[in-house]
Amino acid sequence: MDLRDRAGTRVSMRDRPIGVFDSGIGGLTVVGALQKILPQEEIIYFGDTAHVPYGTKSREIIRKFSLHNARFLMKFNIKLLIVACNSSSAVALPELKRRFSVPVLGVIEPIVEKTVQICKGRIGVIATPATIESGIYQRTIRKFSRRENKNVEIFTQECPLFVPLAEEGWLENKISEQIAQRYLGFLKNKIDVLILGCTHYPLLRKVIKKAVGKRVVLIDSASETAKRAREILKERNLLAAYPSPRRGEVNKKGKIRFYVSDSPQRFKKLGKNFLQKGIGRVECIKLE
Amino acid sequence: MDLRDRAGTRVSMRDRPIGVFDSGIGGLTVVGALQKILPQEEIIYFGDTAHVPYGTKSREIIRKFSLHNARFLMKFNIKLLIVACNSSSAVALPELKRRFSVPVLGVIEPIVEKTVQICKGRIGVIATPATIESGIYQRTIRKFSRRENKNVEIFTQECPLFVPLAEEGWLENKISEQIAQRYLGFLKNKIDVLILGCTHYPLLRKVIKKAVGKRVVLIDSASETAKRAREILKERNLLAAYPSPRRGEVNKKGKIRFYVSDSPQRFKKLGKNFLQKGIGRVECIKLE
Repeated sequence: MDLRDRAGTRVSMRDRPIGVFDSGIGGLTVVGALQKILPQEEIIYFGDTAHVPYGTKSREIIRKFSLHNARFLMKFNIKLLIVACNSSSAVALPELKRRFSVPVLGVIEPIVEKTVQICKGRIGVIATPATIESGIYQRTIRKFSRRENKNVEIFTQECPLFVPLAEEGWLENKISEQIAQRYLGFLKNKIDVLILGCTHYPLLRKVIKKAVGKRVVLIDSASETAKRAREILKERNLLAAYPSPRRGEVNKKGKIRFYVSDSPQRFKKLGKNFLQKGIGRVECIKLE
Repeated sequence: MDLRDRAGTRVSMRDRPIGVFDSGIGGLTVVGALQKILPQEEIIYFGDTAHVPYGTKSREIIRKFSLHNARFLMKFNIKLLIVACNSSSAVALPELKRRFSVPVLGVIEPIVEKTVQICKGRIGVIATPATIESGIYQRTIRKFSRRENKNVEIFTQECPLFVPLAEEGWLENKISEQIAQRYLGFLKNKIDVLILGCTHYPLLRKVIKKAVGKRVVLIDSASETAKRAREILKERNLLAAYPSPRRGEVNKKGKIRFYVSDSPQRFKKLGKNFLQKGIGRVECIKLE
């Protein structure tokens, strides 16, 4: 099936971009994981930096912002929408799925599915206040564990200082160690898997691991969400076509375009840590 | 001069409320100081919690939000507008003064005036990235020091973790001590006055004092801004009339009405620490 893009050119369904949004820069960890396993895909990223953070805001307003972000990405004729923000995934996913015809993928189901598969029965979940209070992880874990016939015990903890800590770039110093210790010390030797329920948290992986104990498996949304995205595109025959490397041809590399609703300079500066490489042009769009 | 309020009742100019806005809860420290020295005044407080924090956002968007907040307060027929947010005061004050006919007071000039009066020549300024980058404190200090014929040296430091730390309520523990030490250790024995250039910072006064040294005088915007507000109202004969306590009558106590653009529950919960007393009804207004 072919479509025409905004300039009227015929665009194969498979060559349409993947749209990703987050409240700010955290979703770049998902983009990084996507690029690793789907390097040929074009990605449009939108960071709602005018409203960041979502994690301390209300359900109603997060839903409103999420809808606005999704509408912006739809203008690019995307083939898949990834909600790379836990707070949005927690409260806005059903509405986004109802409103748009393209597949919509959040960061919560992929990570929970993986967790329930590998866990021995004791799961920890850390996230922002909004995500924990929404109860979404707790509900989703119970849903998948019933399906797998597993008994699980769930421990949750809000970690509001982790986001500013990751943005400040204090990833492994004594202060971040102590903050992790204070939030997570009670989980030590209590759990076998820990869900990092916020896209900022993978940056603090080392201090989190130290606080909960070496044997605890940390699961982050970035790689699990990227894998699920690949499955969805494959099922629908929507993976971007690219020449086989075995024929000696150079792979087509998917471009990433970055949009934000405020402070492109700050996004560029902080985003490097999250994407684990430099960020090119960032365009700032006006709020409606 | 008398006016009519929205219900058509005649309202004396002096009995009109003072309007105060901030990006969130920080401005409540200013409200607390106002209530101490002007207990008879009615106050309308607006916290733009849908957009908090301002300190990491761009000048353009802070200006836009500030204008929106001021317009909301103008509906209450206020006699004085206090911009109890450093980021807004840094970038939006001239425009607000131009657009509205009531006097507009920011938190920066009062604190700088006091600082330059008492300092011996070495001033430290701590604030959010937006405020420091705006250069407003540096420019205002130079303006007042020229006027007072004083030579001053200025040291600045951004402290982005102080706001989430204050909101988390970690005001005097080891972690907040170490964060203060890390940000401010270089100022020890280097300055004689330190400006707390963010309305959240007074809550961290103890650990800040410990980091910069006992002899350093800390100046916060709350009490200086409240004093300047009293001067402005007095000059214009706008102080709310109330019976003299010497006659044995009970003083009229000014009410405070609280409005936010999101999460009234969170505002109530966190606001207590900032106002240093319980917060009653908080109304959530819809964003336009």
